Amino acid sequence: MDLLPVAQKVIECCRSLALCSEEPGATTRRFLTPPMHDVHAQLRAWMERAGMRVTIDAAGNLRGFYTGESTTPLLIGSHLDTVPHAGAFDGVLGVVMGIALVECLKKRPLRFPIEVVGFSEEEGVRFGVPFIGSRALAGSLGPEALEARDAEGTSIAGAIRAFGLHASEIPAARVSGVLGYLEFHIEQGPVLESLGLPLAVVEKVAGQSRLDFVFEGQANHAGTTPMPFRRDALAGAAEWVISVESSAAESATSAGFVATVGQLDVAPGASNVIPGSVRATLDVRHADDTVRHHAVAQLTDRAKAIAARRGLRVFVHTQLDHAAVAMDWQLTEKLEHSLAATGLRRHRMPSGAGHDAMILAPLMPAAMLFLRSPGGISHHPNETVLLEDVAAALAVGLHFLEGF
Amino acid sequence: MDLLPVAQKVIECCRSLALCSEEPGATTRRFLTPPMHDVHAQLRAWMERAGMRVTIDAAGNLRGFYTGESTTPLLIGSHLDTVPHAGAFDGVLGVVMGIALVECLKKRPLRFPIEVVGFSEEEGVRFGVPFIGSRALAGSLGPEALEARDAEGTSIAGAIRAFGLHASEIPAARVSGVLGYLEFHIEQGPVLESLGLPLAVVEKVAGQSRLDFVFEGQANHAGTTPMPFRRDALAGAAEWVISVESSAAESATSAGFVATVGQLDVAPGASNVIPGSVRATLDVRHADDTVRHHAVAQLTDRAKAIAARRGLRVFVHTQLDHAAVAMDWQLTEKLEHSLAATGLRRHRMPSGAGHDAMILAPLMPAAMLFLRSPGGISHHPNETVLLEDVAAALAVGLHFLEGF
Repeated sequence: MDLLPVAQKVIECCRSLALCSEEPGATTRRFLTPPMHDVHAQLRAWMERAGMRVTIDAAGNLRGFYTGESTTPLLIGSHLDTVPHAGAFDGVLGVVMGIALVECLKKRPLRFPIEVVGFSEEEGVRFGVPFIGSRALAGSLGPEALEARDAEGTSIAGAIRAFGLHASEIPAARVSGVLGYLEFHIEQGPVLESLGLPLAVVEKVAGQSRLDFVFEGQANHAGTTPMPFRRDALAGAAEWVISVESSAAESATSAGFVATVGQLDVAPGASNVIPGSVRATLDVRHADDTVRHHAVAQLTDRAKAIAARRGLRVFVHTQLDHAAVAMDWQLTEKLEHSLAATGLRRHRMPSGAGHDAMILAPLMPAAMLFLRSPGGISHHPNETVLLEDVAAALAVGLHFLEGF
Repeated sequence: MDLLPVAQKVIECCRSLALCSEEPGATTRRFLTPPMHDVHAQLRAWMERAGMRVTIDAAGNLRGFYTGESTTPLLIGSHLDTVPHAGAFDGVLGVVMGIALVECLKKRPLRFPIEVVGFSEEEGVRFGVPFIGSRALAGSLGPEALEARDAEGTSIAGAIRAFGLHASEIPAARVSGVLGYLEFHIEQGPVLESLGLPLAVVEKVAGQSRLDFVFEGQANHAGTTPMPFRRDALAGAAEWVISVESSAAESATSAGFVATVGQLDVAPGASNVIPGSVRATLDVRHADDTVRHHAVAQLTDRAKAIAARRGLRVFVHTQLDHAAVAMDWQLTEKLEHSLAATGLRRHRMPSGAGHDAMILAPLMPAAMLFLRSPGGISHHPNETVLLEDVAAALAVGLHFLEGF
């Protein structure tokens, strides 16, 4: 079967959905904003043509059910929301791939049903609460989460109501008794491109620590305070930023280790005033939680040592400590086997970013396939995929489903 | 003559003027805001009691003239405006000292007139334009400067009008044919305190460079971009901040050299995004312009070398390049002689901050005396002076004026 025309259709569909946006000329589509109606309408039409029964659950997830011999479905999904000024493939690709695979399989008898899920929310942009869609499926979206409010003061429950749904029915969105979950997603990084590989199996979603470090010194006049009299919070923070960067190189188990200072706030923040206080964020990720915790402890000690030597004080707050989530061992093996069977090199990698599969993995066997991101670009209008890579992912998906 | 009661009166007067503020509970008094009327009223009353003829010129400077045998006056002054949430002594002290000295001299015949000037503006807070008062006296406040507008859209000319003055008369504020200018000012730094000295003669106001450095790398996902693939603008900027700090220690002529990165803006500035761009300010000061220019060139080269090694780009903009301003050689000698004559140790130092004396020095012989700043604290409500230091400064001032 020549999958290039199907791959072409998948890409065209993603590009067409990118036009459903809150703002003209850019792709911005947050949880249950009006353009999500247009996305649902387009996908529903294609799902129905492929013979699927389409519903929208109370969390706003689009769900297309294709019947099989058994009653235990396999889920294929990803998310339909986007970051502001997004590309066309982050999330959406995994949903469109699912529909395309059902259409390819349509003429063959299916031993099990397939349910394609387009999650309403993964990015956490509108409410600062990510994974609203997959948490509803997992049954972990409690009523307290629905109280979160967006910048306009609308609650999640209110947004659901405004979309024509009923938040009280969210418990019914929960799934149980499924074969497993399969997610196709762009890598959003440069690794596959640098290795010359189109696809890789995700074996783990890296654990993540987020911390705030506040360095406190003494604000003072930049002209009248000699260098030896200074307690410059920015100089201390800068020394620590370099430590964070070099910690990856120093780590004996550095493969896949990433540490980032993404934000730095300087106070009082005037060109002629020595900084008295600096707040810096730290983001550390690794597939092995022990490695990650060790690195966080080391970087905390390092901040304290720098502060002590410079007469600064440092305050550390942990904002987030997410454990790594392993994908299902057997499904991952199967997926890797399908890579080899379609003539591709077996390759496993961790995911540095969180995905819906991470939310569902504790409840069902879950597996993920990454597609190469040209230029490593994502969360940007230039985000793209290669036609051949999409065709290869379709071939892997078909082999995987046929051999299930 | 016991000067302690006079010193006490000087301090009480400064503390009383600190209550004239735009906001209750704090001292904030920008150029010609309503509380400046109260300051003028209090000082005018004291000036008149001391036998001075009081006027307010078109730039809002309060001027008290005390007659002498000759017609060529000596000016004594400083500024009456403050930074937001200021202390009670920055600027004001120099004006109040002038009045107190005239009062002390009142019973003795004066060979020359003394004009005490309370400058309307030095800090540059309201209009981003500093030295409005002294520039009017120097004749260097052109009509184009009067177009500058504050946050409310009021021009300098408009503020002058609202205060009941006429900007068109500013040329008449210019002085000529004066003996010289003497300014008492708090040090605003920790040097005198660390040396155990109450007073020092200022021999030079340091030159100052202000530059903007923009480091540009590539914003990217903090979870999916391995360390070797990063072009992190903040890591590059941090390395450079450490260079700036250490440049003072490395410099062979480091005495009085100060270099500060006071502000750093990180974009996009999210904890989970690798910084793509960082804007950093640089403030470099030294009494020797050659040393300063050499340091700026070296720090610019260093930024370029760091950027080149890291695959970043760096853009450098010079915002300001003020030459150092020497005080008058003879007046400075006289002032130092008065220090010794009143039993104090001779000490000269540069000023790292700009002062009104710097504006007037090109036009007339100018001299400055620094008073110790306890804790090195200034631009803060805790800013203070020691009673004995004020008495010592009065003694030095009296000796200086009597021997002129």
